[in-house]
Formats: sequence, C-alpha cells, structure tokens
Amino acid sequence: MMILSAFLPAALGFSLSQQSAYRTHTPRSSRAVVEASASGDVILIGVAADSGCGKSTFMRRLTGIFGGTNVGPLGGGFDSGGWETNTLVSDTTTVICLDDYHLNDRQGRKVTKRTALDLAENNFDLMYEQLLALKSGETIMKPIYNHVNGTLDTPEEIKPTPIVIVEGLHPMADERVRDLLDFSLYLDITDDVKFAWKIQRDMIERGHSLESIQASIEARKPDFDAFVAPQREFADVVIQVLPTQLIPDDKEGKILRVRFIQRDGKENYDPVYLFDEGSTIEWTPCGKKLTCSYPGIKFAYGPDEFLGNEVTVLELDGKFDNLQELIYVESHLSNTATKFYGELTQQMIKMGDSPGSDNGTGFFQTLASLKIREFYETLSGVTVEAETPKVAA
Amino acid sequence: MMILSAFLPAALGFSLSQQSAYRTHTPRSSRAVVEASASGDVILIGVAADSGCGKSTFMRRLTGIFGGTNVGPLGGGFDSGGWETNTLVSDTTTVICLDDYHLNDRQGRKVTKRTALDLAENNFDLMYEQLLALKSGETIMKPIYNHVNGTLDTPEEIKPTPIVIVEGLHPMADERVRDLLDFSLYLDITDDVKFAWKIQRDMIERGHSLESIQASIEARKPDFDAFVAPQREFADVVIQVLPTQLIPDDKEGKILRVRFIQRDGKENYDPVYLFDEGSTIEWTPCGKKLTCSYPGIKFAYGPDEFLGNEVTVLELDGKFDNLQELIYVESHLSNTATKFYGELTQQMIKMGDSPGSDNGTGFFQTLASLKIREFYETLSGVTVEAETPKVAA
Repeated sequence: MMILSAFLPAALGFSLSQQSAYRTHTPRSSRAVVEASASGDVILIGVAADSGCGKSTFMRRLTGIFGGTNVGPLGGGFDSGGWETNTLVSDTTTVICLDDYHLNDRQGRKVTKRTALDLAENNFDLMYEQLLALKSGETIMKPIYNHVNGTLDTPEEIKPTPIVIVEGLHPMADERVRDLLDFSLYLDITDDVKFAWKIQRDMIERGHSLESIQASIEARKPDFDAFVAPQREFADVVIQVLPTQLIPDDKEGKILRVRFIQRDGKENYDPVYLFDEGSTIEWTPCGKKLTCSYPGIKFAYGPDEFLGNEVTVLELDGKFDNLQELIYVESHLSNTATKFYGELTQQMIKMGDSPGSDNGTGFFQTLASLKIREFYETLSGVTVEAETPKVAA
Repeated sequence: MMILSAFLPAALGFSLSQQSAYRTHTPRSSRAVVEASASGDVILIGVAADSGCGKSTFMRRLTGIFGGTNVGPLGGGFDSGGWETNTLVSDTTTVICLDDYHLNDRQGRKVTKRTALDLAENNFDLMYEQLLALKSGETIMKPIYNHVNGTLDTPEEIKPTPIVIVEGLHPMADERVRDLLDFSLYLDITDDVKFAWKIQRDMIERGHSLESIQASIEARKPDFDAFVAPQREFADVVIQVLPTQLIPDDKEGKILRVRFIQRDGKENYDPVYLFDEGSTIEWTPCGKKLTCSYPGIKFAYGPDEFLGNEVTVLELDGKFDNLQELIYVESHLSNTATKFYGELTQQMIKMGDSPGSDNGTGFFQTLASLKIREFYETLSGVTVEAETPKVAA
C-alpha cells in the first residue's frame, strides 16, 4: 500500500501542501523519529545539492572514505548505457537519489506546469514512510525516476545498510524527513559561481549566447530560491562556494572561496578548527616556510552566524599547486577526524582527477566525509577501517 | 684628555659634521668594533626613544627582567631631589643616558641655535671612545648632562658591568657607535599617537590650546625626522606604536596598535611567532573560549618589509582587561624566551601600574626584554636567573 502510493497518477490540484512543510511542527512524527534514530539500526545522512544524483564527486569521496567493497549501482546495472537505477550500494552504504520520489514523470509535470524543484512535485509522504522503514531495518520497494526518459520505472528493492545516504534536491525540506536524518549537509553553490561556471561551459565551450545563459539561470532561480535554498538553515554542515577574494573582481570562477559552515551544538560533532578553537583567525600559509604560486591560499576560521544559527566557519580561498601545500594545511587543522597523519591529503590525491581536488570544494567535501565517518562511528559504536596509508608525508 | 673633551666650550661653527655620520663607512673603526664585541666582556644594548632618560618604564621592565640587586641611580643619589646622575646601575646592568654626551649645555645651544636632536649637538667621538672602552672592560669617566639646569656637570666614574644599556636619542646614529651595539631597539611612537597623547595631556589636562600644541609638535618634528627617525632602519627590533584599527577613526589614542618589528637574519635571535612560523596570520582571540570587552584584542603576524629590510612582524591591537586574556595570549606565542609558563604575564602584572601594562606597548617592551635576556645568555654563556613564579596560571 505504502509503495503503491508512489505510482498514483498525481493530477493537477492533487496538493500535499508541501510548501507549508517548512518550519511546521508535527510533534507526533517528531517523536517517532527520535525512537527510530535511537534504535541505531541505520544511520541516515542527508545531502542537499543542486546537481545530478548518484555519480557526483562528493558521493564518491564519501563512499570512498566509508570504504566497503562492491561499490556500484544497485544490481550491477548501467553497463548497457540504459537507465536502471539511481541507487549506489556497497556492503556498508546505500546512496539513494531523492529524484526517485518525484511525484510525476516529466510528462506529468507538463500538465502541472511545475518544475521538479517545486515541493508539490515531490512525494514527501512516501519519502518519509520509506526512510522511516529503512531506519527501522525494513526492506522497501523504492520508486525509480528515469532521468533519461523522465519516466517513473518499476520500483527496486532496497535493503537497509548501516549507512543510508539520501542525496537530492530536498532531503531537508519536509520536517518529518528532516527529523529522520542523523546528519545533514548542504552543498551551496552561490549564484555568482553558478553563473561563472555556466558561462565557462555553455558560452565558451558550447557557443551559447550570454543572453540564453542568463535566461536559463533566471528561469530556474525562483523555484530554487523558494524550495531548495531554504534547507540551508537546517543543515548541520553547509559547504558554501563563493568567488575568490584573492583576485580583485575575478569573473572566471576558477579560483574559489569555499566555506565549511558547521552548525554549533550538533551532538557528537566537534567542529574542525584552526590553531585556536573558538577564536577568529585569518591564515595565509604561503610565506617563508611554504611557497605557493599566485594567488596562493588563504584560510579563515571563526564563529559566525548563518541564517539565524550560531555556526563555526572554516574557510579556504585559493588553489593548491602541489602535495606539499595540501599536507601542510592538513597538519595545521584540528578535529579533522583523520585516522592517520595525512589521510585527508591521501584522499584528495586518490581523487586527484575529480573536479575540486585542488581547491576548497574537494578539500571540504573530503573533510565532511571524514567528519561524517567519525560521526557514524560515535553514533553506531562501529569502527570503519581506514585505507592503508600510501602517502609518505 | 678624552674626558676633558666633553667640557670644551663648543662654540658656534665647531662642527663634527655629524649629519654625515649616517650611512658613511669607516672600515677601520668597524673592524675595531667587531674585535671588541667578540671579546665578550660587556654586552652593549642600544635603545633609541624620544623621551626622558633613566626612569622610563621600558628601562624598568628591562632591568627588572635582567634581575640583579641594588637597582638604582649610580651612587644611590636622587634623594635630595637634585640632579646627580642619569645612570642606573645594578650588579649586572648599567643604563647610560646618551644625553650625557650632549656637546653643549643649554646655554651653549642658545648660541649654536641647534636643538639637542641635532647630531651636531652630540659628541659621538667621545661616545664611541667611551663605549668602546667600556666594552673592552675599562672604567670610564662619563660626562653628566644635568636635565634640571641644562648644564654639563662633573663627570662620574662608570665601571663596566656584563650588560650595558645605552638609552637616548641617538644610539644608532653614528656608524661607529652603532657597530659597537650587540643589540638595538627603537621605540617608535608615530606622529598620530604623539599628537593624540599631547592633546590628552596638554589640552584636556593642562588647558593648552590646540594651536599651541600643534605648533610645539611642528617645531620639534623636522629635527626629529632628520636626526632620530632614520635610526629605525638599523634597529634589530622596532616597537612601533600606532592608532588602533579596532575603532574606526579613533582620535583618543587610548587604544593602540603596536607592532613588534623583528629584523630578519639577526644572529642569535629567533623571531617571536604566532601559531605557524613564516606564514601570515590575523588572530582575534576573543571569541568562544576567551571573552573580552569592546573593542577586544587583535593580533597579526607575518613577514613584511620595513625601511628596506626584510622583517617579521608581530602586531597587537587593543587592550587587555584581565589576567586571563594576558596569559591566554602568551600561551599561544612561540619563541617568547620565557623561562617558565606565564613569565611574560607575571612581568606585566608586576609592572601593572606602569603605562602600557594593559596594551601592546607594555606587552612588547616586556617581550623585548625577555628576548634581550635570551640574546645576552646566548652571547655570553651566562644564565640569568628568573624570578620565582608568583602567578598561578
């Protein structure tokens, strides 16, 4: 019954009044969540991001650090080039793409005239029921949204693993789902950077006009701002990507300033810090002992406020040129949750060809992965084995 | 003969062409200096400052840290309220005021129409000869400039002690004297701060007019800039006092930004640093662990250039409100040359009633004293005993 509800043809006007889900209180389900969470069967991690599901770099960084064998799409599919699943699994971890909870297929959205960003186009009732079931150790039959055809395909069986990661546009939008999450993270690419990246790809590489790029960004922005961005307020960690401040008026978007915004008071989480916990610091490591090429690297650290929350922010502006810089920086941070000296650097090197491996996006995604591993270990009492060091630091 | 020359009535036109002493080279005396210095009999420290001699706070901080007993004016004088000597002595340290090498008395300067700031009004030949003699372990008969009467009094006998500190307007102005110094320090009160202080004292407390204060500052400035300020270039350490940057457009001069400018490459001297040697750092310790009242404290650290020299700068803007702040700051600095945890803080507390004990001027004067003690120990092989800790930190 629960599973079938995903396939009800959701007609225009079939409203779940999802817009009002933000900040509403439903004490009964809240309490149920705490019980499920306390059972410790499954630890649920939410990752909000405005990007494709499943194969994102961050997911590979995260699953890489959690180790586990047989990482791949559920059922070992994909090879045919067709679309079989959005789900990634290993023996410890399941990554579910929340696009699978779209209420309507692409055709259906043409009728409703809503984008998939709209809360009303996502089946949060089902999402909540199924994630609650998974957390309670039950197997579910999860719908599949086919990104190629835009259709809702035959559901797939998902068995609970110790770690379940839900990635997508709305992991924190619905209060019930949000309360199920043990840890939540938001990847926040700011508009300026999105614009610079799109210019780079669509204008310079694909020959689109500036006007068409601007139009496509503007078209998406209202729904994104209304339905996705507000989740930042609820995230335990926000990785915020901004233009560099090292180069005045930089428009290229190649050098980035990335902020690792850690919400204060999160249980079982000790914020990463630089030199002196709780103080405010700016640090340019490039100098007499470490030399870097222009424009170098600059860190900032300190308490701040973010969308009404007290937070602790670690910030990295710039770009790494070599291993020496990376290990130097790692060695000056505290509470990084590494299992050996240089683990953060090693993970960065392992993913060296992936986007962001030479800047704060990769650095903080890796750091977040380490912190989430630590958080998982604390909560579950299970020890995740780290990969053998391969870097002589 | 040497001594008598100090008392020759120096008539107008009796020129020692001291202005050209800056940056001129006299290889023969240079070589002689190195030999005297290498003998290690006496370590000579120069302190340049635009203030009265003998009883300055810095001198008390310095002699306090060097310990020694029977600290006081030479011969135990002063009690009558008259002027007997500018020289302070203990069993280890002699502090000589370089005003004693004024070429003419006050009456004589009325004839020459030069200020005491003018190099031509100072007998560098005699200064050099006598300091060289002291460094070689010889007793000298040093002239005395009487600050009360403005007269040149009967010379006094100065015996060499292990540490001789020469304080005054021109310890680094003459190349021969400069080369005699094992360590040199310049206390640099910038014009803005001098002005704010003078306003505070002469206008608010003494009822002088703004115009008269400005006039008195302007009158002194050309000679100061020509004859005193250029010595900053030669100092091993400059303590530079600037207006705060914590309060926008502060005019009071009560909160100060003080820079501890350490010249690179000084032998037997390891620069004090904050957190990460050789990098560039800004640190606001007031935050989650340490709370401070407005406007708080801010440190900066990093490599810089100062008057053409490569330097390492430690900077403190703000004001300490309590012991906790002081010890917290001390505990995060490295290479402070303290002999036990909290010694810097203890020295600050001991001098708590003296000017600058709650800000960077006192902090860096104390730090300089500790560094000079360390420098002395390295050079001489002698260990200076620290006072017993009295502060439970």
